[in-house]
This record gives sequence, structure tokens and C-alpha cells, in this order.
Amino acid sequence: MSNPSDPPKSHGRLSIKASLQPRDLMEEPRVVKGAFDARIVTLFPDAFPGTLGLSLTGRALDFGLWRLNTVPLRDFGEGRHRTVDDTPAGGGAGMVLRADVVDAALRVAMQGADPDRSRWPVVYVSPRGRPFDQATARRWAAGSGITLLCGRFEGVDQRVLDHWQIEEVSLGDFVLTGGEIAAQAMLDATVRLLPGVLGNAASTDEESFSHGLLEHPQYTRPQVWEGQEIPAVLTGGNHGEVAKWRRAQAEALTAARRPDLWAAHQAAQDAVPKPGRKARKP
Amino acid sequence: MSNPSDPPKSHGRLSIKASLQPRDLMEEPRVVKGAFDARIVTLFPDAFPGTLGLSLTGRALDFGLWRLNTVPLRDFGEGRHRTVDDTPAGGGAGMVLRADVVDAALRVAMQGADPDRSRWPVVYVSPRGRPFDQATARRWAAGSGITLLCGRFEGVDQRVLDHWQIEEVSLGDFVLTGGEIAAQAMLDATVRLLPGVLGNAASTDEESFSHGLLEHPQYTRPQVWEGQEIPAVLTGGNHGEVAKWRRAQAEALTAARRPDLWAAHQAAQDAVPKPGRKARKP
Repeated sequence: MSNPSDPPKSHGRLSIKASLQPRDLMEEPRVVKGAFDARIVTLFPDAFPGTLGLSLTGRALDFGLWRLNTVPLRDFGEGRHRTVDDTPAGGGAGMVLRADVVDAALRVAMQGADPDRSRWPVVYVSPRGRPFDQATARRWAAGSGITLLCGRFEGVDQRVLDHWQIEEVSLGDFVLTGGEIAAQAMLDATVRLLPGVLGNAASTDEESFSHGLLEHPQYTRPQVWEGQEIPAVLTGGNHGEVAKWRRAQAEALTAARRPDLWAAHQAAQDAVPKPGRKARKP
Repeated sequence: MSNPSDPPKSHGRLSIKASLQPRDLMEEPRVVKGAFDARIVTLFPDAFPGTLGLSLTGRALDFGLWRLNTVPLRDFGEGRHRTVDDTPAGGGAGMVLRADVVDAALRVAMQGADPDRSRWPVVYVSPRGRPFDQATARRWAAGSGITLLCGRFEGVDQRVLDHWQIEEVSLGDFVLTGGEIAAQAMLDATVRLLPGVLGNAASTDEESFSHGLLEHPQYTRPQVWEGQEIPAVLTGGNHGEVAKWRRAQAEALTAARRPDLWAAHQAAQDAVPKPGRKARKP
């Protein structure tokens, strides 16, 4: 089915060939042994690495801290036009990706992948899925890799999603022209949590959601700008007061902007013993 | 402050120059009069148009159905290294974008922009913001343009956010290395709702969230795949039955996967008179 003249689309140092011949990826050289391995089934391989090739995620890709391969869905299309879709059964607008075409692409994308789905999720990026969040990013980053199927058009034939027991994950409650940008967002959030990707490891501890709160406001030089001064507590040198102020700001911001997060945070706080209070002896 | 040797980064047919000289963009020729005008303040102008330059959004950009300009934040940096950030007041990891630098970039980005914020939002893409959703995309698409500030590092000096009364909008409850991918996702969701961008106008009516429900499953040829048939109702030719089945599937899926959406949907249903029941005379 694949066209041997199509070059494999590798964005790291290794590639997957769009071939149905079984092949063991484990035999290939690894830049970093066990580096997180992302594989994207897409009609738009040119969308990758995209923004993931810049900045911290791009440097990490160059260093082999993670790997990115695209499996071009078009290679598995039927006929001389390499058709990948057809009209929806029952009528309606748009086109649906064919089960057989998606299946063939997934078989290539899964060559040499970790068969343990808890360590290598197989995900269809879709607004119908469970919402992606920081906990999902953490779970994915703790695994060995991921396969992401990017949809276009009206969707994917349900039978191939059932057959592969694909997890549907949504970027949020909005509709995109395709799954590619959503896949990039999910990968960015995941890859930055991999060891060595962020220069300063401490910076993931204080950010939004790390304690179930939105992040406190930030200030930097100049001391006075447009008549507004940096809050005095931040320049006073009392680290305890700075921490208290930031915590209070983060709590106030979360309560004001995200009552849902605030309620969840308070429930979590009530469930653990308060610091400074002695736990009762049994 | 800007370096005249830096070419303006235009991704449509018009460009914004990184200059502090006031200039009226309205005097420039427009490919499509009143085309939606997106302006991105970013440290990574190379990230754009990215995936937005492909497929339907890319074709629409080529046709002038919307415009995309980046304002490179680095052009407004200080000194020979064009420094844009500094350490956070009060200590902590990471770096904070300076108020004066961001302010200078925003002044350029807002040249000729519609001053009515309801028709031209000025948005900082940040996990601290109000979550982006389909209603936000619809609201933005009904306006004349948007300015998106993409953050990096720990954040942006709060004073420039206050000064510009910038709206903070979040892509979701996760942290990205920067705002660029999030801005692309928000623009993709918005631009596809602009008139003429989607080939088939009907296709935004049935998709997820258009009726507050997740989309029903889709099927297409072949009729039998891996022993699984397309549900008989979809190939039976009874359009009323197809619509009923799809509705029931969408409702069941929403109730199972997204109790939050399902509750909101039911509340909305209860608030409108049931079809087929006569409204009482006053």
C-alpha cells in the first residue's frame, strides 16, 4: 500500500518507514536509551514538528531526549488518488476516515511500541474525548511513548476506534479543523515534563495546577513602570512573607476565576491533615 | 527600538512593521475588506503560520479570508542582546517578561486595530485565564480581529496586563512551554467559523458542542470491516430514524463521558418549551 518513493517522515534521529513489513524498531540505534517516543498518524506530516521543533522542546528533540515520528495517513489510501475517506453512512456533511486505512497506518505506527497501554497510550485526538489536563501530561510523560491519531473531516469510522480500543482525548470544548495542533499542544505539555527538557527543574513546581491553584502574579524590573510599583513585599527580602503573599494571591485568583478548581482544591485540602497540627495518636 | 533590518513578519498579504511610528493600517489595501485580522506578539514568529498555513485555514489565509501578522517581541528588547525578560521580583525560578518590552510590542500590534474590545479582544494566552471554548471561538469570529500575546518563561509582569486590561484566556488546565501552540489552537477554532473558510457550511452544525452534545459515532464504507457491520439504521434509508439514532447516541455518549456537559445540556433543555407542545396563551 505504501509508496516506496515516499521518504519516511522522521523529525528526530530515527524514522518509521510506511511499510507493512514487520520490523523491530528496538534494533535501531537510540540516541538516548528509552527516550520518550511519540508517533503521529496524520494527513499533514508537514505540520510536524512545527512549534515543537523550536525552543525547549526542539532542543530536547535535537538532543534525543524524545523522539517524534509521523506516519502519513495518505500513504495508506486506496487507489491512485490514495483515498482515505468516504461519505458518512446515514448521510450528512463532511467525510469520514475509513477504518481499513486508519488500521493500516496504526499497524505501522505501533511497530516496536510498548504493548503496555498504561505506558504507551494509543490516543485519538477528538473533541468527544476525556479532557486533556496536567495529570494526563504527567501520566504520559511517565510512560515510554505514545501514538496519537489526528483526525480531519467529520471523524473516524467508529469500528477502528473500537477495534484498537483507542482512548479518545480532547484538548478542550472547542472544534479544530484537525487534530494536529491539539496533538502538538498535548505533546508540548508532556515533553516539557520529561527529565532534562526544562533547564530549571524547579520551574514546574510553582506553576499553575502544580498545587491545584492558578499561579500568582509576577513582577520584574523596572521597579516603577507607568507609575505602578512592584508590590513592596516582593522587594522586602523576607522570603516567608513573599511565599505567604504569593499563596494568598494564587488562592484569591483561583477563587475568583475558577470556582471549579477552587472547590476541588478546598476539598483536597480538607482531606489531608493541616500542617502544624499534630496528628492524633491512634 | 526596532531593528530596521528585521523584515516584518507577515503571513498573509499585509504586514505590520515593528516600528513605534504611528501608522494607519486602514490605509493599506485589503484583499477581502474587513477580513478577520489576527496579530500575534511572540518570541517565536517562526512558529507561525505553522499548522495554520496548511489545509483549510491555510487556503483561507492565501485567499485573504483572514490575515495573520506576527510582532516579534525580541525586536523590542533592550540593549545589544535585546533582553526581554528579567528575574522575578521576590525570587523564584524562571524569568518574567518585562512590562516595558511587552508594552512597546503591544503598541505596534494595536496600530489600526478596532478600539472596541468586544470586536477586537486583546488576549494573553495563559493557564491562569478563563478557559477557551466554542462560545469564545464564536464570539471572536464575529469580531473584526484579535491580538494574542504569547508568553514564555514564568509569565508576564502583571503591571502591563493591568495597564492594557488584557483578557487572560487559557487553552485548558495544563502548562505549555509557551503560548504559541495555544494561540494556534484558538485561532484555528476561530478562523474555521469565518464565512467561506469551510467548504461545506453545514458541517459546523452537527459537530461536537454545536448543540451542547458530543458528536455521535460515524461510519463509512466498507459495509463490513473486521467482522463488524455498519449499524443497520444508518444504511436503511430512513432519514428520521437516522436522526433519532444519532441524537440518542450523542446523548448517551455525552452522559457517559462528560457528566458536566450533560447536566448543562439538560438544564438548557428544561429552560426552553418542548417542541410539539403548544405554548400557553397569555
